Amino acid sequence: MRVQGRTYRTLWPDSSGTSVCVIDQTRLPHVFSTVVLDSCQAVADAIRSMVVRGAPLIGASAAYGYVLAARVDPSDQHLEHAYQMLLGTRPTAVNLRWALDLMRAALADIAPAARFDFGWARADKLCEDDVAICQAIGAAGLPLIRDAHVANGRPVNILTHCNAGWLACLDWGTALAPVYMAHDAGIPVHVWVDETRPRNQGASLTAFELASHGIDHTVIVDNAGGHLMQHGQVDMCIVGTDRTTARGDVCNKIGTYLKALAARANDVPFYVALPHTTIDWTIEDGVHAIAIEQRDPAELTQITGITADGELATVGIYPAGSRVANFAFDVTPAELVTALITNRGICSATRGGLLDLFPEQRSPLGR
Amino acid sequence: MRVQGRTYRTLWPDSSGTSVCVIDQTRLPHVFSTVVLDSCQAVADAIRSMVVRGAPLIGASAAYGYVLAARVDPSDQHLEHAYQMLLGTRPTAVNLRWALDLMRAALADIAPAARFDFGWARADKLCEDDVAICQAIGAAGLPLIRDAHVANGRPVNILTHCNAGWLACLDWGTALAPVYMAHDAGIPVHVWVDETRPRNQGASLTAFELASHGIDHTVIVDNAGGHLMQHGQVDMCIVGTDRTTARGDVCNKIGTYLKALAARANDVPFYVALPHTTIDWTIEDGVHAIAIEQRDPAELTQITGITADGELATVGIYPAGSRVANFAFDVTPAELVTALITNRGICSATRGGLLDLFPEQRSPLGR
Repeated sequence: MRVQGRTYRTLWPDSSGTSVCVIDQTRLPHVFSTVVLDSCQAVADAIRSMVVRGAPLIGASAAYGYVLAARVDPSDQHLEHAYQMLLGTRPTAVNLRWALDLMRAALADIAPAARFDFGWARADKLCEDDVAICQAIGAAGLPLIRDAHVANGRPVNILTHCNAGWLACLDWGTALAPVYMAHDAGIPVHVWVDETRPRNQGASLTAFELASHGIDHTVIVDNAGGHLMQHGQVDMCIVGTDRTTARGDVCNKIGTYLKALAARANDVPFYVALPHTTIDWTIEDGVHAIAIEQRDPAELTQITGITADGELATVGIYPAGSRVANFAFDVTPAELVTALITNRGICSATRGGLLDLFPEQRSPLGR
Repeated sequence: MRVQGRTYRTLWPDSSGTSVCVIDQTRLPHVFSTVVLDSCQAVADAIRSMVVRGAPLIGASAAYGYVLAARVDPSDQHLEHAYQMLLGTRPTAVNLRWALDLMRAALADIAPAARFDFGWARADKLCEDDVAICQAIGAAGLPLIRDAHVANGRPVNILTHCNAGWLACLDWGTALAPVYMAHDAGIPVHVWVDETRPRNQGASLTAFELASHGIDHTVIVDNAGGHLMQHGQVDMCIVGTDRTTARGDVCNKIGTYLKALAARANDVPFYVALPHTTIDWTIEDGVHAIAIEQRDPAELTQITGITADGELATVGIYPAGSRVANFAFDVTPAELVTALITNRGICSATRGGLLDLFPEQRSPLGR
């Protein structure tokens, strides 16, 4: 998508063919800058520090990280070390494991000397596939927005949480792909952007990318969505997911569950957009089976912004003597999800709904 | 309560007898400082800028502001001007109107020359009454915490939103009064403190006052409460209210409603603590009858903290090109409230429950 008049993806190979460039998302929205990642370690650090974030972008980054390890040493042993290092950066992101498993399988039967070139091409294809997946999600979700506009005859108010836009993917985004497509199709939309504490991905990233694309939006604190839904100011919620269980429970950024509760209480449709790669077919009950990552308390206690002089500065906003807990995700039970918007179309958030779209996941016994 | 080894209230007359001192709550938790307010205008500015905040403290401040106007000019006309100026500072705070109505009625039949001295004494009494009210709320709520401890045999986990502690009142607090009393009675408690964006009264004030009193607590983002309740980590919620309708709808800091929804979904008791002065007997349906104040977008876009050098600094945290909306309150429908904790005891959040405690509010027709 476009930034400052130029078209970007979130990750692209640089001209050397031995490193990749990414947008440093920790400096948005104040500073737009790119970073060169030239080693597996650099990629791992970028994932851990959230220079890159969002399930699909994490997966794509890890794929290149794995290949960059093969450039240094293409042995099975070294690649296994790279696999483990990359996998440990974000334990909750199932898409990370998926991308690494794909790359490991792709290189396993390739002669070590050919692994770097082969793997690089495979990572390139993974990125192209992701763009196609996001476009398919957008196409699947677009009719929901169009129908709401036809029914109401006014701009469609969509609430989203965190950032599941193109900055989280390679392009288009997941939750925002239908929004971009609706806008491009001439359907008037307005997005309520949850700030999304503690890292403010909504205020920092979603607002930035919507503004860059010219989409009407308003930033609100995470506390405000219930009030808006109570007063008919939200026509639908669309959020992304880091991990979706086989029955449709959704593990997404902390606070998603509270919005789903408010949507249900006020008869607002609550949609979750996802690429099939975020589905974890091995888990049913997400509330009890998914361990929730706890992150650094400094994500709450410190905040970076821009001073009146235009300098980036970090300030402490909590009292020194208080304990802080930082739960990164929560799980929204499937019964609160109106529908899943996938790259194969829309389905109910049920095991049956998902299996109708992904019949290859049915067990041989026809479960 | 105690700060840095000394006992404070949030407001006290200074030795001159012609001005009052308050704690500057906009500088907490980083800097503890006091401010002298020596005119009605200074009081109005302090309320509007939230140097003083919290319904009871706003009421007490306004009472002294009204009296300070009488010192300059005790005429009916001037006092009416002061009444309107003070009333306009925070339109949602019913306690503000209550305190001003009380002062106006008290001075109406007093000779102008005697109004300042008489009014000052009346404002003093209003403060003493508030302390007694908060103590009564604490005594009413204490058994709820004790019973939870007896039932569970472990520290009682209490979630609170915003600041309804002693910093919001003259002393003790409303929602936190039962917590202080339980702690002082030797019942182990642990408080989950909602950060409470946009102004972070939880992280800045509630955490500060709990730490000062030695009460175990953990600060979380507003997004986290649903996850905690889903996983049995919250035994009860206790929040305050700026305005309570005659049937028990509760208008409190934005985000309260989302916590009430999560509490209901997870069978967690949701209590609202209130002095009788916050009850608006003229309103039944708070969701539709209470106009929600919108405040300055800068409360979201700018944040003040402390730099590594120990200086207070304000930084911008939002992209420059995005619209921002700042709804200050929301309304939690009575059906989500387990019980009201008042200075006359505990009642159901219903018209009948409130009237049983406040029978003088029954209409002559016995409604």
